[in-house]
Amino acid sequence: MTDRIQQQLDFLAEIDKMKSVLRQTLLIDRSRRENDAEHSWHLAMTAMVLAEYAGPTVDLNHVLRMALVHDLVEIDAGDTFAYDTAGYADKDDRERAAADRLFALLPGDQGPMLRALWEEFEAMETPDARYAAACDRLQPLLHTYLTDGHTWTLGGGVTEEQVWQRMAVVEDAVPALWPFVQEVIAWGLRTGKLRPDPEAAQ
Amino acid sequence: MTDRIQQQLDFLAEIDKMKSVLRQTLLIDRSRRENDAEHSWHLAMTAMVLAEYAGPTVDLNHVLRMALVHDLVEIDAGDTFAYDTAGYADKDDRERAAADRLFALLPGDQGPMLRALWEEFEAMETPDARYAAACDRLQPLLHTYLTDGHTWTLGGGVTEEQVWQRMAVVEDAVPALWPFVQEVIAWGLRTGKLRPDPEAAQ
Repeated sequence: MTDRIQQQLDFLAEIDKMKSVLRQTLLIDRSRRENDAEHSWHLAMTAMVLAEYAGPTVDLNHVLRMALVHDLVEIDAGDTFAYDTAGYADKDDRERAAADRLFALLPGDQGPMLRALWEEFEAMETPDARYAAACDRLQPLLHTYLTDGHTWTLGGGVTEEQVWQRMAVVEDAVPALWPFVQEVIAWGLRTGKLRPDPEAAQ
Repeated sequence: MTDRIQQQLDFLAEIDKMKSVLRQTLLIDRSRRENDAEHSWHLAMTAMVLAEYAGPTVDLNHVLRMALVHDLVEIDAGDTFAYDTAGYADKDDRERAAADRLFALLPGDQGPMLRALWEEFEAMETPDARYAAACDRLQPLLHTYLTDGHTWTLGGGVTEEQVWQRMAVVEDAVPALWPFVQEVIAWGLRTGKLRPDPEAAQ
């Protein structure tokens, strides 16, 4: 077996740790929290099933690769809850350090290719990355809706404004799904699972 | 929101159950058994990282789609342990019934497309399906090796001959990884984790 294959197998063993990085999202049956590996799979499935609503220039092949690698850095950096303002302060630094270590496990020509997929996803600028990001909002939103608003009730509660901001990319990248976002937010406000925007309440 | 989108979201919610279908494989840290959703993600990553060793006609884009859907039928049919001879007797019937139900949740033009990916994977005839199947052997083999032969010691033990048969597609579809298979089997026999072929022992 070549050193190159050994490096690749070492990387594939290392990323098994994704299965132990827990997110705030619950499984739909509420039995436990979701982990990063199964989230990444579900995100890829979401991107595949909803692909017809992506913009005409979106390349699903590229999106699927991004979905598979987009959370790898969380092996070291941990999952940062989408509505954790404090956690986001040093998220970039933590994730960059993680990327430096993880992608360097791969052969020198291959690591940078996978890292580029992660960086493109994070920058959220290309149509592919924006579609991937929109799916990365829709999959947890579906869980939130089907688990009685679970993640919105954590840590003192999430406000309507935070969710509109987080979901904005859906309106732009997958407009056909925007009514779903609007319906779920309206449901959250109606049921009290989501805190109204303080300004709107004045 | 259209009925079509509702069907697609219902399907995406239904397949969340993949996260609760347990395989015999342990996570590499041995903390628990692996589930089908995280296995499907790890399989897709394996196919992506080892793609350079696939045959020249293999289309990784198609392989990734197959990897994502290849175990969906196990939501109804359950995981059949690779070395469970009795379980394999009615595996086809159980999985076909599962496919009839699951893929019918999707719109009429989309369900058959995803089902065709699963059927291609199962038939193991096209170069894409053979590469996907080889990766579906290599990922659990890596886990078996790194968890002290765990799956080989289950249910009275697995024989060398069973593993050679199960792994044969690797030699054909990803020959560069065949030395890895040979090394792990040799290790299994040396350490007693794998039962020698009865005939070879005579």
